[in-house]
Amino acid sequence: MEMISKKASESLVMMTELVLPNDTNVFGNLMGGRLMYWMDIASALSAQKHANAPVVTASVDNISFEAPILLGNVVYIEAKVSRAFTTSMEVHIRVWGEDLKRQHKYKSNEAYYTFVALNPDGKPSPVPQLTPQSEYEQKLYEGAMRRRQLRLILGGKMKPNDAFELKALFAEE
Amino acid sequence: MEMISKKASESLVMMTELVLPNDTNVFGNLMGGRLMYWMDIASALSAQKHANAPVVTASVDNISFEAPILLGNVVYIEAKVSRAFTTSMEVHIRVWGEDLKRQHKYKSNEAYYTFVALNPDGKPSPVPQLTPQSEYEQKLYEGAMRRRQLRLILGGKMKPNDAFELKALFAEE
Amino acid sequence: MEMISKKASESLVMMTELVLPNDTNVFGNLMGGRLMYWMDIASALSAQKHANAPVVTASVDNISFEAPILLGNVVYIEAKVSRAFTTSMEVHIRVWGEDLKRQHKYKSNEAYYTFVALNPDGKPSPVPQLTPQSEYEQKLYEGAMRRRQLRLILGGKMKPNDAFELKALFAEE
Amino acid sequence: MEMISKKASESLVMMTELVLPNDTNVFGNLMGGRLMYWMDIASALSAQKHANAPVVTASVDNISFEAPILLGNVVYIEAKVSRAFTTSMEVHIRVWGEDLKRQHKYKSNEAYYTFVALNPDGKPSPVPQLTPQSEYEQKLYEGAMRRRQLRLILGGKMKPNDAFELKALFAEE
Amino acid sequence: MEMISKKASESLVMMTELVLPNDTNVFGNLMGGRLMYWMDIASALSAQKHANAPVVTASVDNISFEAPILLGNVVYIEAKVSRAFTTSMEVHIRVWGEDLKRQHKYKSNEAYYTFVALNPDGKPSPVPQLTPQSEYEQKLYEGAMRRRQLRLILGGKMKPNDAFELKALFAEE
Amino acid sequence: MEMISKKASESLVMMTELVLPNDTNVFGNLMGGRLMYWMDIASALSAQKHANAPVVTASVDNISFEAPILLGNVVYIEAKVSRAFTTSMEVHIRVWGEDLKRQHKYKSNEAYYTFVALNPDGKPSPVPQLTPQSEYEQKLYEGAMRRRQLRLILGGKMKPNDAFELKALFAEE
Repeated sequence: MEMISKKASESLVMMTELVLPNDTNVFGNLMGGRLMYWMDIASALSAQKHANAPVVTASVDNISFEAPILLGNVVYIEAKVSRAFTTSMEVHIRVWGEDLKRQHKYKSNEAYYTFVALNPDGKPSPVPQLTPQSEYEQKLYEGAMRRRQLRLILGGKMKPNDAFELKALFAEE
Repeated sequence: MEMISKKASESLVMMTELVLPNDTNVFGNLMGGRLMYWMDIASALSAQKHANAPVVTASVDNISFEAPILLGNVVYIEAKVSRAFTTSMEVHIRVWGEDLKRQHKYKSNEAYYTFVALNPDGKPSPVPQLTPQSEYEQKLYEGAMRRRQLRLILGGKMKPNDAFELKALFAEE
Repeated sequence: MEMISKKASESLVMMTELVLPNDTNVFGNLMGGRLMYWMDIASALSAQKHANAPVVTASVDNISFEAPILLGNVVYIEAKVSRAFTTSMEVHIRVWGEDLKRQHKYKSNEAYYTFVALNPDGKPSPVPQLTPQSEYEQKLYEGAMRRRQLRLILGGKMKPNDAFELKALFAEE
Repeated sequence: MEMISKKASESLVMMTELVLPNDTNVFGNLMGGRLMYWMDIASALSAQKHANAPVVTASVDNISFEAPILLGNVVYIEAKVSRAFTTSMEVHIRVWGEDLKRQHKYKSNEAYYTFVALNPDGKPSPVPQLTPQSEYEQKLYEGAMRRRQLRLILGGKMKPNDAFELKALFAEE
Repeated sequence: MEMISKKASESLVMMTELVLPNDTNVFGNLMGGRLMYWMDIASALSAQKHANAPVVTASVDNISFEAPILLGNVVYIEAKVSRAFTTSMEVHIRVWGEDLKRQHKYKSNEAYYTFVALNPDGKPSPVPQLTPQSEYEQKLYEGAMRRRQLRLILGGKMKPNDAFELKALFAEE
Repeated sequence: MEMISKKASESLVMMTELVLPNDTNVFGNLMGGRLMYWMDIASALSAQKHANAPVVTASVDNISFEAPILLGNVVYIEAKVSRAFTTSMEVHIRVWGEDLKRQHKYKSNEAYYTFVALNPDGKPSPVPQLTPQSEYEQKLYEGAMRRRQLRLILGGKMKPNDAFELKALFAEE
């Protein structure tokens, strides 16, 4: 595995799905679980593009379902690595729904999934670093550190007091 | 909808699934997305048991995938409402894998999903309050408030400084 | 494989499923075939818990579909080994539907599936004996012998006259 | 619904399926539950051909799984109504597997499924009588009465002593 | 692989499927893609029956969807090899829908799929020649040469001027 | 429906899928039928984007499967309307596979699907005209007329002699 840095845009994955009857709840809306399944595949592919190695889902950050996506509507999922750590990568995912007839496209949700790259023996394997290019990518890159501290605290692997970047968030206000 | 309080145990849902080939990644392990799909259904049913009304997924908290579940292994999912708010409920989910041949059962992960109960018009509908009984349920009940503040902050709907319970977490250490 | 006896309760499997659109017929009811598929998995897991070995379906006894389960309702499947023979096990399965909104839970059907445990070469492999504990388990244990005779007669592997327990059933009345 | 009699051959349904990875157990054999699902659809279509009305599965008789069907093999299912009662029909199903490469076709199992025809209100609806033509169809037609008595006894809806045809089976030997 | 000739009828495959909710578009009609999936399996099995070897889809000729098949209707697919070339076979497929309640059966579409037989190393493998028997099979056999030339021209592997049989088609009129 | 002309690029749909075990044949390659299913959805969405109305598959032109896509590889499908007729649209589809580990991306196949736009009564509905922009889009636009004549001839709706553009193809060489 070469350890040179890669651009965020190199890991972009765009997925398009159609909401079929079996994907919906009694209200005829896309079930959250089905969407999380698609988001997992889209973001895993994005992480694999960055790592050029197979990956497994390590954790999923807070996902908020803002707008329901309706039966027969299209689902657009865009996934891109936001930051690479030693053997793990955080992927930023955005989801939109679209009613093609009314030409109405709407934001559905946003989330962060974290993956670990594995070598053929199934052990964590180093990944290239990520270089953000746009201002938006830079912002996601910086937030990734705070989200990582939060994951480690919630997972009991870091003490809140050691999460300097996260603490700052509470102090600043 | 009666507004009396209900016990946490009344909302218990136990789901058992078998890991089939199409649920696995190249390592022969259960894909994270498939598990999140099952967790969504198990926890949605738990929330419906509490609310006696249809529910939709509102948000999902940090999920950590600790141990992979193998092809042919059994997946046990246990979901129980941890706290009810006005129209929403937080559901606590625990997942185990089991290799029935070796009689080896292992913890796979833990998560919190939040659901909103809807009335027939698809508008949020009040739900009964939840009364924790055991010490464990009491602990989950208390933590639910901190997780809620965290969700609101991450969703940009609350200022960190107003999250008193969460702030205490950082000050205490 | 240790040949000690195991309790019926050790093999209990509880499965919970949600009836989705693709599981239903034109009346919006769960199709019999989909339910038989779930019952097969639940009971196979129960037999594996008892045998601690992989199993294959050997036969299915008379199944009566009493009450249809509706789209959006929950399906509860409870499977428990009722008796172990040399290399085979009879599993007793009970199924309920539930309309969570109306809090209406109803019995849907009951059945017996028989499985054979296999060793790594795919040959039948001895299984532990089963010790019924409750009165209900004792009744299922005794009935298992009559059902076995019936299966052997229907399969042309036993003469009706040799089925002493079954003959008694006709004589008694 | 005209009440004229129909031939058994008019209800013949031939289904061909391919065993894919997700249909198999750890031995790479078709799972019993998946086969029961296909048999349910094939036999329901056969009953609908006879009744010209929608049908629901009422019961399934003893199924014996004789030979496992392997991954990549073909499954042939042949279903034909064996006898019609007032509002119900018994369908006889035979299943074969085939390894197309070795040109090896083998019998896998045989079963009887019973269906009830429903009118648009979901109530049982009379069906045409069935006239067996071949000697084989005649034999299935006669056996159907004994199987029906057995179903009624097992379902607690008939006393063993009233099952004249079934009693004869035990006396004859 | 024996190189004797085989009859077209030896490769006949009859598939029967039921249109379920997830197979339909917003009009409640069978989606074209789902039908093409079933046609691919039916015709691949037909080609395997002829070749007694595994096959892969090489090309699909023009498919016209004449009549939509409705939710709850039955789909009948009939596939039969129309001509064998050195290592490839053209399979002719006809599809009908049926509304069992109204006893209305209708032609839905017709297509030609071409498959290549492979040896265990995944290389093209010779197949037996095909002998048409009926007049209808003879007509399909002759047309197969024109369709092959068309495929080669469209695939850029033959010059239009070398397609003698196809050119005749334009000249004749 | 406004009848102004739209750009080809407005109808672009990019779909990304992962090849899972159940999508593969015995060689571990993506089955042709599964790919045609995905291509149908991608191209139907493209046609809907152009028409802003629901569409149904009318016909599929010659598809050649050039390179097999392997289990665990990624499938990229790109669909764009190549020409609009009165109520129908031809969609051009290109498919690539990618082995993310080896960073090897390869062309798998190319096809043309034709869709008809429908109004709420299920009758054909006029669609906007298409304006090709790039040279590549212009070439696809021109070829669409020849492919349409070929479809009409093959469907028996046009005499070869009336297909001026197609005849030219044979004369030119």
